Amino acid sequence: MSIFDNEDELYMQQALREAKEAYDEGEIPIGAVVVCNGQIVARAHNNTERLHDVTAHAEMIAYTAAANTLGSKYLPECTLYVTVEPCPMCAGAAWWTQIGRIVYGASDKKRGFERMGRAMLHPKTEVTSGVMEEECAALMKDFFRKMRGSE
Amino acid sequence: MSIFDNEDELYMQQALREAKEAYDEGEIPIGAVVVCNGQIVARAHNNTERLHDVTAHAEMIAYTAAANTLGSKYLPECTLYVTVEPCPMCAGAAWWTQIGRIVYGASDKKRGFERMGRAMLHPKTEVTSGVMEEECAALMKDFFRKMRGSE
Repeated sequence: MSIFDNEDELYMQQALREAKEAYDEGEIPIGAVVVCNGQIVARAHNNTERLHDVTAHAEMIAYTAAANTLGSKYLPECTLYVTVEPCPMCAGAAWWTQIGRIVYGASDKKRGFERMGRAMLHPKTEVTSGVMEEECAALMKDFFRKMRGSE
Repeated sequence: MSIFDNEDELYMQQALREAKEAYDEGEIPIGAVVVCNGQIVARAHNNTERLHDVTAHAEMIAYTAAANTLGSKYLPECTLYVTVEPCPMCAGAAWWTQIGRIVYGASDKKRGFERMGRAMLHPKTEVTSGVMEEECAALMKDFFRKMRGSE
């Protein structure tokens, strides 16, 4: 018997593992995995500090890695699991990948794509939000609390 | 005496050179340069086919290259010159770079960021459009005409 309620939680737990790696590296703790036909084909976490590259978000790295793994530019059969609501850049990139589904944990009212509307995404992309929301949000809050404390 | 009307045309001509390289490589012909204090600090063209990566747009490659050249994650003193209106992904990425100015040539009513509104961009980012618009658009039209002809 799985300790997880469902498949979405199982994969979000993997995205959270990536987010925790980011946390330990001093990166904003956002993690992602891409799943295709029950297999994780890419895993990534935010890497903007290490790479000195503001575009090195978990999702962007995961899309490129998934495309490499599958040998396909497009990801219609894939699901992106990401711990925090994607930003407009990452939603715009999702449009190009034609990814089948996006599942995210915590909302990001300030930087998330949802404030721009679902037209940001490809019409074929389904969205599920709020999966393991509390855990995903707690990691972010803890990170920024720690950052403020060290200023 | 310059053959160009102004500095914007001078740099857009360089972005067009990049776009023509893309054209010759069978890539959608969009080119970009990033200029900082009168110097070109990055040049790039669309590379989605060669890299099998739908996120490998001229702008994305140019932002990362400019940040590498300058040793800075942010580009507030820079101007991006790009032959075609950036898509939402590239506009969303521009937000993260805090780039000072974006100058584009041809509009893209279907895929461009403007349909999502200027809130896609950082409030400090200025935009100039329509620089060498005809040349930039002609290259795109020619490319897609050729592609259709070879189907």
